[in-house]
Amino acid sequence: MSLDGYVAGPNPTLEDPLGENGMQLHEWVFGLESWRSQHGLEGGERNEDDELVTRSLANVGAQVMGRRMFSGGSGPWEDDPNAEGWWGDEPPFRMPVFVVTHHRREAREYPNGSSFTFVQSVEEAVSLARDAAGGKDVRVAGGASVATQCLDAGLLDRVDLHVAPVLLGGGTRLFDEASFRRLELLGVSGSDAVTHMSYRVS
Amino acid sequence: MSLDGYVAGPNPTLEDPLGENGMQLHEWVFGLESWRSQHGLEGGERNEDDELVTRSLANVGAQVMGRRMFSGGSGPWEDDPNAEGWWGDEPPFRMPVFVVTHHRREAREYPNGSSFTFVQSVEEAVSLARDAAGGKDVRVAGGASVATQCLDAGLLDRVDLHVAPVLLGGGTRLFDEASFRRLELLGVSGSDAVTHMSYRVS
Repeated sequence: MSLDGYVAGPNPTLEDPLGENGMQLHEWVFGLESWRSQHGLEGGERNEDDELVTRSLANVGAQVMGRRMFSGGSGPWEDDPNAEGWWGDEPPFRMPVFVVTHHRREAREYPNGSSFTFVQSVEEAVSLARDAAGGKDVRVAGGASVATQCLDAGLLDRVDLHVAPVLLGGGTRLFDEASFRRLELLGVSGSDAVTHMSYRVS
Repeated sequence: MSLDGYVAGPNPTLEDPLGENGMQLHEWVFGLESWRSQHGLEGGERNEDDELVTRSLANVGAQVMGRRMFSGGSGPWEDDPNAEGWWGDEPPFRMPVFVVTHHRREAREYPNGSSFTFVQSVEEAVSLARDAAGGKDVRVAGGASVATQCLDAGLLDRVDLHVAPVLLGGGTRLFDEASFRRLELLGVSGSDAVTHMSYRVS
């Protein structure tokens, strides 16, 4: 997220689902070896940020996602039940993904091991993802609304924040609907490009 | 601020100007030797947080403050030109403080070296504070609105954030009105109770 708490900038479009300047939140990750290999690319940097990404994904067996993250940000298309997802023919997840949406859709599977299954609630998504993960961790990939719903429903053990040194001045806030809650700081690390903050939810 | 970006919780009152749970943002500071000595109290902890507070105040010669921070949070009283300030007979600043407010008021001086001078704009406040500081730093103490106005007006060299491991779920946001801007991370430190993040404004 940005220093002012946004996970996407203002005025998202289907071409630019992260909104104005929103891509700057993710710049720290694009050059990393771990991100590039996840997306089928060679090379990349191997630094502390890279180790953290590798470590945080190593034990993940399934993911949970909101309909906006599936469909490509906020916009008129997000309510179109026939719209394709934003992730193309090779979604970079390579594991089962459970999408929370009120629209009923057929599940999809891809040759690279990614799959999308559409469910009605965060509780159902986390429950199915836990089964699918087979003892590994379940990661809530986003977006903001589903992440906050999971937190408020007591479904999260841990919150990992990656704070970019930028103010977006508007957009989609990560914790817009959060309830009062104290967290326990597990650790802080990072580089010039990003600060990683990890919390246990008690 | 809180993890969700608030510097005060919901429903502030004159008795509780930081709003619901807002005091939890400051808990990390109350036990420190530096905070206690600033408020005329003996004892206190001397840890890394304490060193940071001591260091960050050591070279400050004057401060800038919004009318809400002067009068005690948001509420009906903040527009009362005759209301007393919230800080009592011994404001803990011990240096000149310039308060941005549209209400014209007489300046006040206190035996401990604190003074309040009331001015009309952040530009005027920073300019007078710079003169009063005599070569030392000017600190923008708060609240959120004045801090963001100073940032957007290009009046800040540095932003120091102290992030408490708590979600407030509502209240006064620090960066509610910020403009898009990239900052340069200078350093991150802290303890279980708080994370200090320091940025250069370019």
